[in-house]
Amino acid sequence: MNYNREPAITELFLKENFGMTATSNAPLFLGIDVGGTNVKIGLVSDSGEVLCATSFPTNSERGPAYAVQESRKNFDLLLAQHELTSERVVGAGLGTPGPMDIGRGMILEPVNLPAWKNFPIRDRLSDALGLPVTFTNDANAAAFGEYWLGSAHELTSLVYFTLGTGVGGGIIVDDCCIEGVHSLGAELGHVCVDWSPTARRCGCGKTGHLEAYASATALVARMQERLRATQSASLSPDSLTAKQIADAAESGNSLAQDVIEETAEYLARGIAVVVHTIDPEAILLGGAMTFGGQTSTIGRRFLQTIKTHVGKLVFPEITQNLKIDYAVLGSNAGFVGAAGLARLHYHRFQPRP
Amino acid sequence: MNYNREPAITELFLKENFGMTATSNAPLFLGIDVGGTNVKIGLVSDSGEVLCATSFPTNSERGPAYAVQESRKNFDLLLAQHELTSERVVGAGLGTPGPMDIGRGMILEPVNLPAWKNFPIRDRLSDALGLPVTFTNDANAAAFGEYWLGSAHELTSLVYFTLGTGVGGGIIVDDCCIEGVHSLGAELGHVCVDWSPTARRCGCGKTGHLEAYASATALVARMQERLRATQSASLSPDSLTAKQIADAAESGNSLAQDVIEETAEYLARGIAVVVHTIDPEAILLGGAMTFGGQTSTIGRRFLQTIKTHVGKLVFPEITQNLKIDYAVLGSNAGFVGAAGLARLHYHRFQPRP
Repeated sequence: MNYNREPAITELFLKENFGMTATSNAPLFLGIDVGGTNVKIGLVSDSGEVLCATSFPTNSERGPAYAVQESRKNFDLLLAQHELTSERVVGAGLGTPGPMDIGRGMILEPVNLPAWKNFPIRDRLSDALGLPVTFTNDANAAAFGEYWLGSAHELTSLVYFTLGTGVGGGIIVDDCCIEGVHSLGAELGHVCVDWSPTARRCGCGKTGHLEAYASATALVARMQERLRATQSASLSPDSLTAKQIADAAESGNSLAQDVIEETAEYLARGIAVVVHTIDPEAILLGGAMTFGGQTSTIGRRFLQTIKTHVGKLVFPEITQNLKIDYAVLGSNAGFVGAAGLARLHYHRFQPRP
Repeated sequence: MNYNREPAITELFLKENFGMTATSNAPLFLGIDVGGTNVKIGLVSDSGEVLCATSFPTNSERGPAYAVQESRKNFDLLLAQHELTSERVVGAGLGTPGPMDIGRGMILEPVNLPAWKNFPIRDRLSDALGLPVTFTNDANAAAFGEYWLGSAHELTSLVYFTLGTGVGGGIIVDDCCIEGVHSLGAELGHVCVDWSPTARRCGCGKTGHLEAYASATALVARMQERLRATQSASLSPDSLTAKQIADAAESGNSLAQDVIEETAEYLARGIAVVVHTIDPEAILLGGAMTFGGQTSTIGRRFLQTIKTHVGKLVFPEITQNLKIDYAVLGSNAGFVGAAGLARLHYHRFQPRP
């Protein structure tokens, strides 16, 4: 399921989005984003030009050592294809799904990567690449990507919601990424949006969490309940997907539209809570559960409904200026942000001449 | 109403709490905390020794210029009494109630300081003292005080709840204070703990906010409703105070105990939401609504009930290590934290030799 805008990395895309010009001799940063299906890897310049990128299948059953080895191989390929020397690359950033121990550089037991258990990925990757590796959660990396080069460009803070099979998040304030002492910062899918005794159960076992309302899984479950309760024949509740619900809503199915509007309302609750905690300059929404974003009627309506409800729930001083929008980097945000975090680390610890 | 521990600043207090030793020639920082009734002002060393402190009446009807002038006067007095030269003081920190514009150094229209409107307090104070002034919200300053020298000493992050007439908050992550782009960061009293249509109305006009349940005002209102509904003769609902409710609970009044337990449950909801957003190392509770803290039966029971409910609401990986405790600096936290923020600013922008 993926109907979000995912711009291919083309010369045109780079030029339009990053004002890419000729490469210089400034340092380069390698960004790596590990997903359940693919690993994205790319080189980003100090000024934020994405020079080149590629991807390879995660083949998660082959374990993390395979991904480390393939990362080195693809890094070499990128260097060779673009006639770059490895000396120009001064750091790497890595984003992976949690749970993880960021401080110790460990990946713990990610649900989407079954064979990846308790692996010291940061140090192994660092050895393989011969580079210092900045390690973070995939949602934090995506948030940092949007903060550095995407929708939130030139802002000082942002809260990023990833809306997909689950709901994740990233919070950046003044270049500081809220990673959390247990690497569980910005677990925005687990902010409570319903405290009632009848609240829905979340995948984590607790009740009333945003993820139990605004994830693709939750959308499907809620739509199935409605279809069964109303005995509507408009859609079959069996093997229903979020994409089908979005398509039905786009073609005018009012039940599908209602369920999506309701999702927007719950999401607004989650946003309101985080806004009163962080008071960020922008809220960005990314992932497949953005229904095609600005390119679809339902996507535009979803965003508008969220804004309306947020307006009712948060201080007027905030809503006046708060930017709420869709993210723009799509699935590139992860490796771009990972490279950005590596860059931040490099400049913090590198004495300037 | 003030039954929280508020240690007087004595030599013994300083020695026990800060391991205060002989003063050195290291730089000093002035901390100023503006409250509705008093302004606290003190000198703190680079290593966190509180050298001396005093206070003067805010006399808020005389406006902010009066407080600026009195701050200068009291600064001079502190220097003279302790035979210190003004050259040793390299920066000042100022905490005031909001709303404010931290970036512009403006105090806007604080409810508790009626004659203080749209005043450029940071720059006026800076001119009067001849020092750079680091300006922040009073709750942020108190949070930073606890982070630097109080209960949270040697932690990397904390979330601080101020429980008084209202509910405020401060969030510190890796020396970064989450102030917010509208100076409305960590407005923890306005995190929603009840999304139902019957939720209580908050002073801000929205419904279901933590402040509508866990502030002293809310405790009194809820107790009054219970007393009237049950026609209990144990306490008079008229001119009831939070202190009376706490005393009644301490002497075994079960209605008062119930209302306080319920307060703990709502507070746990607010804590749970913030914990899943920030994943901090510690949660600290300060202010009069801590019922005497560890020194009273009801205070200890309040904390225990909060911990029990937080345990049910947040990820087990977090509750295992999360410290939830009362703050220790009492009303000194504000000026200590303001001085600490001035120190942070000084070291960030001061080239080291």
